Amino acid sequence: MKVVTFGELMLRLAPEGYLRFIQSNKFEATFGGAEANVAVSLANYNQDVSFVSKLPNNEIGQMAINSLRQYGVNTSHIVRGGNRVGIYYCEKGASQRPSKVIYDRAYSSIALAKKEDFDWDDIFSGADWFHFTGITPALSKEVAEITLEACKAAKEKGIVVSCDLNFRKKLWSNKEANETMSKLCKYVDICIANEEDAKDVFGIEAKDTDINTGKLNKEGYVSVAEQLSQRFNFKYVAITLRESISANDNNWSAMLYNSKEGKAYFSKKYAIHIVDRVGGGDSFGAGLIYALRNSYKNQDAIEFAVAASCLKHSIEGDYNLVSLEEVKALANGDASGRVKR
Amino acid sequence: MKVVTFGELMLRLAPEGYLRFIQSNKFEATFGGAEANVAVSLANYNQDVSFVSKLPNNEIGQMAINSLRQYGVNTSHIVRGGNRVGIYYCEKGASQRPSKVIYDRAYSSIALAKKEDFDWDDIFSGADWFHFTGITPALSKEVAEITLEACKAAKEKGIVVSCDLNFRKKLWSNKEANETMSKLCKYVDICIANEEDAKDVFGIEAKDTDINTGKLNKEGYVSVAEQLSQRFNFKYVAITLRESISANDNNWSAMLYNSKEGKAYFSKKYAIHIVDRVGGGDSFGAGLIYALRNSYKNQDAIEFAVAASCLKHSIEGDYNLVSLEEVKALANGDASGRVKR
Amino acid sequence: MKVVTFGELMLRLAPEGYLRFIQSNKFEATFGGAEANVAVSLANYNQDVSFVSKLPNNEIGQMAINSLRQYGVNTSHIVRGGNRVGIYYCEKGASQRPSKVIYDRAYSSIALAKKEDFDWDDIFSGADWFHFTGITPALSKEVAEITLEACKAAKEKGIVVSCDLNFRKKLWSNKEANETMSKLCKYVDICIANEEDAKDVFGIEAKDTDINTGKLNKEGYVSVAEQLSQRFNFKYVAITLRESISANDNNWSAMLYNSKEGKAYFSKKYAIHIVDRVGGGDSFGAGLIYALRNSYKNQDAIEFAVAASCLKHSIEGDYNLVSLEEVKALANGDASGRVKR
Amino acid sequence: MKVVTFGELMLRLAPEGYLRFIQSNKFEATFGGAEANVAVSLANYNQDVSFVSKLPNNEIGQMAINSLRQYGVNTSHIVRGGNRVGIYYCEKGASQRPSKVIYDRAYSSIALAKKEDFDWDDIFSGADWFHFTGITPALSKEVAEITLEACKAAKEKGIVVSCDLNFRKKLWSNKEANETMSKLCKYVDICIANEEDAKDVFGIEAKDTDINTGKLNKEGYVSVAEQLSQRFNFKYVAITLRESISANDNNWSAMLYNSKEGKAYFSKKYAIHIVDRVGGGDSFGAGLIYALRNSYKNQDAIEFAVAASCLKHSIEGDYNLVSLEEVKALANGDASGRVKR
Amino acid sequence: MKVVTFGELMLRLAPEGYLRFIQSNKFEATFGGAEANVAVSLANYNQDVSFVSKLPNNEIGQMAINSLRQYGVNTSHIVRGGNRVGIYYCEKGASQRPSKVIYDRAYSSIALAKKEDFDWDDIFSGADWFHFTGITPALSKEVAEITLEACKAAKEKGIVVSCDLNFRKKLWSNKEANETMSKLCKYVDICIANEEDAKDVFGIEAKDTDINTGKLNKEGYVSVAEQLSQRFNFKYVAITLRESISANDNNWSAMLYNSKEGKAYFSKKYAIHIVDRVGGGDSFGAGLIYALRNSYKNQDAIEFAVAASCLKHSIEGDYNLVSLEEVKALANGDASGRVKR
Amino acid sequence: MKVVTFGELMLRLAPEGYLRFIQSNKFEATFGGAEANVAVSLANYNQDVSFVSKLPNNEIGQMAINSLRQYGVNTSHIVRGGNRVGIYYCEKGASQRPSKVIYDRAYSSIALAKKEDFDWDDIFSGADWFHFTGITPALSKEVAEITLEACKAAKEKGIVVSCDLNFRKKLWSNKEANETMSKLCKYVDICIANEEDAKDVFGIEAKDTDINTGKLNKEGYVSVAEQLSQRFNFKYVAITLRESISANDNNWSAMLYNSKEGKAYFSKKYAIHIVDRVGGGDSFGAGLIYALRNSYKNQDAIEFAVAASCLKHSIEGDYNLVSLEEVKALANGDASGRVKR
Repeated sequence: MKVVTFGELMLRLAPEGYLRFIQSNKFEATFGGAEANVAVSLANYNQDVSFVSKLPNNEIGQMAINSLRQYGVNTSHIVRGGNRVGIYYCEKGASQRPSKVIYDRAYSSIALAKKEDFDWDDIFSGADWFHFTGITPALSKEVAEITLEACKAAKEKGIVVSCDLNFRKKLWSNKEANETMSKLCKYVDICIANEEDAKDVFGIEAKDTDINTGKLNKEGYVSVAEQLSQRFNFKYVAITLRESISANDNNWSAMLYNSKEGKAYFSKKYAIHIVDRVGGGDSFGAGLIYALRNSYKNQDAIEFAVAASCLKHSIEGDYNLVSLEEVKALANGDASGRVKR
Repeated sequence: MKVVTFGELMLRLAPEGYLRFIQSNKFEATFGGAEANVAVSLANYNQDVSFVSKLPNNEIGQMAINSLRQYGVNTSHIVRGGNRVGIYYCEKGASQRPSKVIYDRAYSSIALAKKEDFDWDDIFSGADWFHFTGITPALSKEVAEITLEACKAAKEKGIVVSCDLNFRKKLWSNKEANETMSKLCKYVDICIANEEDAKDVFGIEAKDTDINTGKLNKEGYVSVAEQLSQRFNFKYVAITLRESISANDNNWSAMLYNSKEGKAYFSKKYAIHIVDRVGGGDSFGAGLIYALRNSYKNQDAIEFAVAASCLKHSIEGDYNLVSLEEVKALANGDASGRVKR
Repeated sequence: MKVVTFGELMLRLAPEGYLRFIQSNKFEATFGGAEANVAVSLANYNQDVSFVSKLPNNEIGQMAINSLRQYGVNTSHIVRGGNRVGIYYCEKGASQRPSKVIYDRAYSSIALAKKEDFDWDDIFSGADWFHFTGITPALSKEVAEITLEACKAAKEKGIVVSCDLNFRKKLWSNKEANETMSKLCKYVDICIANEEDAKDVFGIEAKDTDINTGKLNKEGYVSVAEQLSQRFNFKYVAITLRESISANDNNWSAMLYNSKEGKAYFSKKYAIHIVDRVGGGDSFGAGLIYALRNSYKNQDAIEFAVAASCLKHSIEGDYNLVSLEEVKALANGDASGRVKR
Repeated sequence: MKVVTFGELMLRLAPEGYLRFIQSNKFEATFGGAEANVAVSLANYNQDVSFVSKLPNNEIGQMAINSLRQYGVNTSHIVRGGNRVGIYYCEKGASQRPSKVIYDRAYSSIALAKKEDFDWDDIFSGADWFHFTGITPALSKEVAEITLEACKAAKEKGIVVSCDLNFRKKLWSNKEANETMSKLCKYVDICIANEEDAKDVFGIEAKDTDINTGKLNKEGYVSVAEQLSQRFNFKYVAITLRESISANDNNWSAMLYNSKEGKAYFSKKYAIHIVDRVGGGDSFGAGLIYALRNSYKNQDAIEFAVAASCLKHSIEGDYNLVSLEEVKALANGDASGRVKR
Repeated sequence: MKVVTFGELMLRLAPEGYLRFIQSNKFEATFGGAEANVAVSLANYNQDVSFVSKLPNNEIGQMAINSLRQYGVNTSHIVRGGNRVGIYYCEKGASQRPSKVIYDRAYSSIALAKKEDFDWDDIFSGADWFHFTGITPALSKEVAEITLEACKAAKEKGIVVSCDLNFRKKLWSNKEANETMSKLCKYVDICIANEEDAKDVFGIEAKDTDINTGKLNKEGYVSVAEQLSQRFNFKYVAITLRESISANDNNWSAMLYNSKEGKAYFSKKYAIHIVDRVGGGDSFGAGLIYALRNSYKNQDAIEFAVAASCLKHSIEGDYNLVSLEEVKALANGDASGRVKR
Repeated sequence: MKVVTFGELMLRLAPEGYLRFIQSNKFEATFGGAEANVAVSLANYNQDVSFVSKLPNNEIGQMAINSLRQYGVNTSHIVRGGNRVGIYYCEKGASQRPSKVIYDRAYSSIALAKKEDFDWDDIFSGADWFHFTGITPALSKEVAEITLEACKAAKEKGIVVSCDLNFRKKLWSNKEANETMSKLCKYVDICIANEEDAKDVFGIEAKDTDINTGKLNKEGYVSVAEQLSQRFNFKYVAITLRESISANDNNWSAMLYNSKEGKAYFSKKYAIHIVDRVGGGDSFGAGLIYALRNSYKNQDAIEFAVAASCLKHSIEGDYNLVSLEEVKALANGDASGRVKR
């Protein structure tokens, strides 16, 4: 059985090291996108996983596909066509200088995709899990409808559906997000969010928490999860908790709320020295999917997901290139960073 | 007095060395575009030159502007706005493998520019020369109209107008090009073209010449120039003559037709070992503008323009980074490549 | 139906550009090996192809596998185990300075592989073509026996067998090669060789040809092909003809001998400006396999194979990263290297 | 109205990353110099600014000029002549290993400049601010006199004069510095210094402060500022306060003393994880000039200057490549380093 | 008088920056090995030092030798022969992700060396110190015997012998190590170990210390040193004390036990921000050899050795490229990392 | 017995690939200088060789020394002191664009060296050959006198003296060169020159040869050699003959004139595709010294020297990093550039 993820895969153009855009005459050219990042993580955990999207039939589209194939993601359901690979420019921050992301994703092949591009019956053959994020339906009205079709098809086939709210204010307004995501979330079993998404998308807040200081309010997050569960009947709500000390140093932990039990499980908290934090949330989602799909207990699941995403912060690029053994070792407590010979 | 050029400035993303796109995880990030390339050449010859375009108000737009400022091009008439810097991906060919260019320029700030973005009265203040190429009006109907406005304004002010036909089949059809360029060419004094443009745009042919073999038919080119001159009343027609032996080796020469005299001047021919041939035609145009604007005799003008563009083929990137002295030295006959200490 | 190739995949460590080993503190790290190179070529021509080998269960082995997966080669029959990935160090020559290859491949996982590592019945399921080269049986006596088993299994299943003689004097003596290859060639349908292999392995000579001058003796090569066909009952013998002018410039052509017809087909000859010639022979083999497997006529087949391998010389690394369309374009005569926009 | 800065612009040669000189065979080649750094900062804040210096009429001199032009600094008053661009070699330290700077700046074009090279009347046309540092007069006796001429000309024209004491013991002795700077400071309105300069140049000390421990003695600094103000009649004295924890970690704050009020304003203190601290002081000076020139209140001015220079520590190279918006955001309190999308 | 060290010198292949192996297509290619690292350190302290080993007679062997010669190590006793330079692949860890080392050193020239390759009488001519580590005898039984011969020869000539236990579980079992090292340690005067070696090799433990938490138990280490001294009659036992907080941050100190006095000297402790920690122990050994060979007092010796190895953590590669002056400056207390101009 | 060479060793700063200076923000940092280049060549041919110079006692000076030590050159007679390492900037030409060298060597440690820095008695202990070029005495009057002292000391000790005229117009006038070189040449046994040196230094011409066309006039060169021999009593005069076709392609040959025999020996001529031609003449000198010092016959000597320098053109940097075996292979006729496996 396989996992299917659906979304956009973008070319990521990043200056080397800590150079700013305006100092650069060279870009690291890698690929990333929320749902593709999840797919790569799962492939690295030896899961059968297929990424669904649309990419142009030129060499840049091929580069994007090859970036997934090399890690073992199935790309046979990626439709070829349209004219452009979406791009995001990514400048790495340091100390008090934040990282900066400039999107150039409008008019990409997937953003202009049509319903007839995707045959969900065929795509979901052999699948037991479907994952998407709030970015996908934000790409265009048509893609939102495609996502809805996918959700319905998944539901009919008894496929588990997970969704990371992933609000992007450059793509749509809070109101648009609320409307569309409300429709989609009816089909979602497992909802993943960061500290801000619930508020941005649904207006549900973790009271008394200032995301710029990072002081956490555990009760607040439990309340957010409860509200979300009640509104959409989620089985699980997972919330990542990032405390930004600087562009280099973050604390990182998460909570898993089991709505049936009405109980929240908090992970341990990691003090992270950041190499690259883009894709951190996606690596959490992938860790959670792995853990729940492989019947981890709730506390173990949240620890696995947080350990996986903790490690992502030490890795360049969007993809979380860590093995199952490495995540388990960290989840089991070896955080000393001692050399493995 | 200054020269004004108008067009698109794109981000050029190129794999290192002779790597193919699908082998690359790093792109050289430079900037280029036909009319901007001409502007940089002229600045390198100590001409006062202003490049006019529209670029987004973000760091990528700023990189584009800085790439011009560093060589002394005036960028004060570049309008900031819109959402994207057009992109072209450029893979360098070798031997029998051709170079490959993939355009991702649709929806760029300049392609979506509006008439009201440009005040040609202000822009042309202090100008005595206006240059554009066939790429600019091909960007959109609105930009074609803007170009027409610019041509009219130039004509009224007695500004010399030069145009490189520069046909791009990915941007428009031969028919569209013919219609639009026919309107614009009425205002043009000096027409620049390569071996194929006259045919692609106006259906005017240099008979008996196969561009893939590079055997030249001098009489044919003179006839093309005559036909062009007669149709549009050009003062000068310049045609570059490229013989492609391989992706590494080209022969390069050109012809300048003085329509008043009814006489054609052929340059000497250079056997070039290519470093980067993109921008070769633009560097020719810039050389010709320099020479004519500085009252070179016809034969000297075509020799200067060809020497300038010969040198361009030895330089990485779109911009022709050579000095007046270097062009003169080559035009005067020192082609031995001996070390200058 | 799929093609199966069997051999070693090595880590290739190469200084940047034209640097010598003793000037370098950085190595390009790519992967290559005769049979893997063939597999990548075929995948690039959209053929279903599986590469069979043994690689250690560590990250270096994984890098090797990923290098194939990214281009779409099936790696599911690569056995994981043993301790090392074979290495070759490769220094690029220029002008009169030859390229230099230093092998460090002894004791690699595949060289120490055991018969029980490979289940040819399973591997050949769905296959219609099997390819190996003379390097594989030279790795060890056990691997020679494994290759023999593979040949027998292929024969039983009616799978076409092709073999590139590929003599490597660092791996075995002429005598050892003769003995082992004589046994294997009984099962081979299509034999591929360069100008020297037939002599080195079987003592069969192309008279009057000095490989250091590159003056070809067409009759001699036909005679070599005839002798080979008669001794081993090959259906086809293909011989590549390299004329080394310098480390930068080679002439390249080939001959296909159809033993049933008793007729030789010579390709056109390309004057190549070399980017990287390693893997040139493998890209020829892959081109030939593609052409014969897709029922090209004899002359068309040899033209396709030579065009494919001509292009390889313009590409960095062992793998021939060209598409079917690109090979066809060159085989059909467009060798001018003009920019594709 | 414009700002004028005067000094040396050097080629900065730096090994990549944390490599030591003796491990390197490649240098990052950028440009920097105290007064040029200030000019670039001001250009980045959209101020009209002209940098005055002398640079050789060769390509290395041109590189230096282009490095300024790309950021919008006016370079039309840079005199071309002399033989060399001064150089400094810069090795980045880490942890307990300090950064190392080796100067090779003697005999540079500016160090050998003559009075007649500079026409201050012309240079100061349209200027309302003049800035130099203690490095400029230390270059040579002649340059000291040129600086004095500039100060006098500025004073006559009612131009504000700011000076960063910037003591360099490799360029002159404390005694020489004292003599020369005492003459120049008569014309200075705003004096900028780090914790050590006042002592090194004028023997004025911040008592009870050990610069190697970084424990600050606020009262001591106020007393230093008072003494400086009294001796030279400065309107403002600004002192930067660096606490060096290691080569990677510094605390950074500053004080602005308003001599008319007799009151000191201390900024907040930033814990900085350093990318590159060279140019930190210059970026502070530029921030202060911007703030005072744009009529910021005293507390706001020192906060702006410290925020600007805090950000500089996160940027590679001498130039502080941050925008007005970025400095304001940090000065207004967002130091969390969260990604800007 | 000179120092002699004996062991393996390996090619170290490392991805750039924090890239993982499976993201890399380029390796930094440097050289390292415990005893060679010690030799380079000593050469940097202006000691006459000769490194003894066996390396193949090809360019890779030559690269290894050149890497030592450039720092002034005498390589005239390195035997040329055999087929391979041992390799280790080294991936740099960050935050909670540990560094990873993959060895590919079997069958190297030194591992297959023979007794007759080394003439210790000749090698030790002019020597007063011999150093090896536990890695050397672990390479093969023959090399263990060669090491024993060297120790005996040294003892006969009155040469001081130092040994770093350096247990490598990939090379031999604890039992094998115990047997062989017990024989060799009879000839050793000065024993160096990290927190784990004494236990791994001889079963001697520092009770109550968990190496993953880094909480130190000073009494435990003194007891370990006492036990070691008593068993092997060492004059000195030095133990390095690493507290691993993360892959980026370690605390580092050490203890020197003088067995004659029965007294332990603890160094100050450094909080290190790591650039590259490989070779940290070797740089400690070299510092200790320097200090003891130059008659430093016990406390001064351990401070010098710890300062030297503290600095190593800030340097890329195995070799500790610091000067005597730099070590002394740190040992004397300047740990602020302030720029040296 | 050893060879001694004396001169300047400079830091060579070169943009990557074919980039122009004004496109670069990174320089390859290597070292070179005529006499040091000769020393490295000789060390590569296993000759005992010592390079004598003066270099500052800082890390840049140390880098220079290490660059020689790594190839086995004895650096123990390099005096440390003074303030700067001379620099030359080197931009690689291509096709019709010539390479460009900008010198920044004035005031270097060696240019300001004093007689008392060098004890020639000590330096020449164990020497049988002394080599310098016309660059060394051109550095300063004092260095010219030091060179004269060295020549006299060499003569007294019966040491062979060779000199490459190496005229540099940036360092001195033809008249100064003539005066000084005339004094020095009295002590010279073997004179090396290129096509222009004899004329530039001594006004002796090879008639009817235009160095920009490269058409050679063999009789003219013999006449030049005769005149030189007669004027200075040289035993041998060797002249290199370069025909510049373009910056990429040169023909290369040379002549050795044996004045005792009154006979000239011309080498074969190589058509070279250039990687880096700087140091070509020095590599010829080194080849000639090797050949004559090892008693090659005249024809063999000139073939060895030309083959050695032909290979240099294929190598990046000043140093000719080729082995004896490689030069011999080419001199013996294998110029095909076929891969060595």
